[in-house]
Amino acid sequence: MKITKIVSKENPVFKNTLKLKNSKKARDSNRVFLIEGLRLCEEAIKSEVKINSAFFTEFWYEKNTDFLSKLLKSEIDAYILSESLFKKISETVNPQGVIFLCSKLSKNFFSELNNLFFKESNLGVKILILENIKDPSNLGTILRTAETLGINRVILSENCCDIYNPKVLRGSMGSIFRLYFFISKNLPKTIIDLKEIFKIPVYATTLCENSIPITKIKFPKKCAAVIGNEGNGLTKETTDVCSFKIKIPISKNANSLNVSSATSIIIWELIRER
Amino acid sequence: MKITKIVSKENPVFKNTLKLKNSKKARDSNRVFLIEGLRLCEEAIKSEVKINSAFFTEFWYEKNTDFLSKLLKSEIDAYILSESLFKKISETVNPQGVIFLCSKLSKNFFSELNNLFFKESNLGVKILILENIKDPSNLGTILRTAETLGINRVILSENCCDIYNPKVLRGSMGSIFRLYFFISKNLPKTIIDLKEIFKIPVYATTLCENSIPITKIKFPKKCAAVIGNEGNGLTKETTDVCSFKIKIPISKNANSLNVSSATSIIIWELIRER
Repeated sequence: MKITKIVSKENPVFKNTLKLKNSKKARDSNRVFLIEGLRLCEEAIKSEVKINSAFFTEFWYEKNTDFLSKLLKSEIDAYILSESLFKKISETVNPQGVIFLCSKLSKNFFSELNNLFFKESNLGVKILILENIKDPSNLGTILRTAETLGINRVILSENCCDIYNPKVLRGSMGSIFRLYFFISKNLPKTIIDLKEIFKIPVYATTLCENSIPITKIKFPKKCAAVIGNEGNGLTKETTDVCSFKIKIPISKNANSLNVSSATSIIIWELIRER
Repeated sequence: MKITKIVSKENPVFKNTLKLKNSKKARDSNRVFLIEGLRLCEEAIKSEVKINSAFFTEFWYEKNTDFLSKLLKSEIDAYILSESLFKKISETVNPQGVIFLCSKLSKNFFSELNNLFFKESNLGVKILILENIKDPSNLGTILRTAETLGINRVILSENCCDIYNPKVLRGSMGSIFRLYFFISKNLPKTIIDLKEIFKIPVYATTLCENSIPITKIKFPKKCAAVIGNEGNGLTKETTDVCSFKIKIPISKNANSLNVSSATSIIIWELIRER
């Protein structure tokens, strides 16, 4: 780890980092993303994600020798910034004092659906499918819940929120470093492929009158469940190609569940051993 | 409904409302709270909450005649504000254009634990207990999930986030107008009372080694479950007085669940019919 102090806002590394922070276009074209805070940065170190550079406040640098010792042997370029410069590259109001600039993953992203099954085990495959989830906090929580409960394959429709959105990264608590993803450009087609090529039944979660309550279902060892948009649920096109329609039975005259609560329950039922 | 136009920021009603918006102390001493947006205001109209006054932007007032017709016969004082004045009393960046000033509820708040059971049915009583939940988005989601799944009694330790916090109100989607609450000044004592006076077993949710996986439990018709703080879980004092320790079994080496996902699953298991 090579350590450099940055004191001027004209420093080219600082200027470039600030640009990356502020421009999604710049991040995309460089295939990089920023993560922030002790917990997420620790997850990045443990994972296979490539850390390009690290930024610390002086205060944080002096207080976190244990954390830094894990980085010492690496080839990461590290920079110590003044509090005021650090604040500019931070996403938070009260930054902890550590930011990593990382390269986007390719290992756990698949352009072809069949790669999602390369680690397939005989014990079963459970897949979570998300259509048009827009809120980054919801998406972060959903990915965190999926990983924690033991689902490690996620298919997202192309119009879902970007999983590298800083709020998704924070909410997911590093899950995106470990989950396997397929971003589908045509979700109904992907679902048909799951059913026909991979023989995986797909359950649409939808509050239709003729949806089966999940309490009445015994999910098979291989299956997938689809969750729809926060406000509008699943599209008709997607619902129509699924094998079954399911719902969480709820109190009459009550509220609805928010999408991350509903997804927690669906995932729980998918993986729950009975 | 009496309708008045407010055009000056020196108008006393406007000034008073702005003060209430900005000062929790002023809201507390007047026992009022503000709610915002079509959905939440509709829930307030349907509930027994007392609406003192209504504030609209001119645009919203002209576009929402259906909604307004529900208010026409009421004794609410209504005010039409310019966009710029309205923004000042709004909590959101892009206000929808409707705000209600309401009186705090007393009907569904109990200073004595036994009042929480006045509507007790023979079918069973499930109670959710929350200790030191700090994040208003988490608390809002938890209350929404509880009500949606059919739990309508909630005990909160005094150090939980205020349920009239604007983020809790928004996240709860009006659930707080309908749930029954008891705010406990001494949670371990309240739990002992539940067990000894009401004969209700209380389950502590905690990731101890000797906690029982919830998959191994058949919850009785009368029971309560306690959920702890986001970062620290339950206090030892609270855990020690509970009847049982339970946990959600999770993948090894994985993340933890966030508190609202964990609570969704606990509530689901509490109410799930098997």
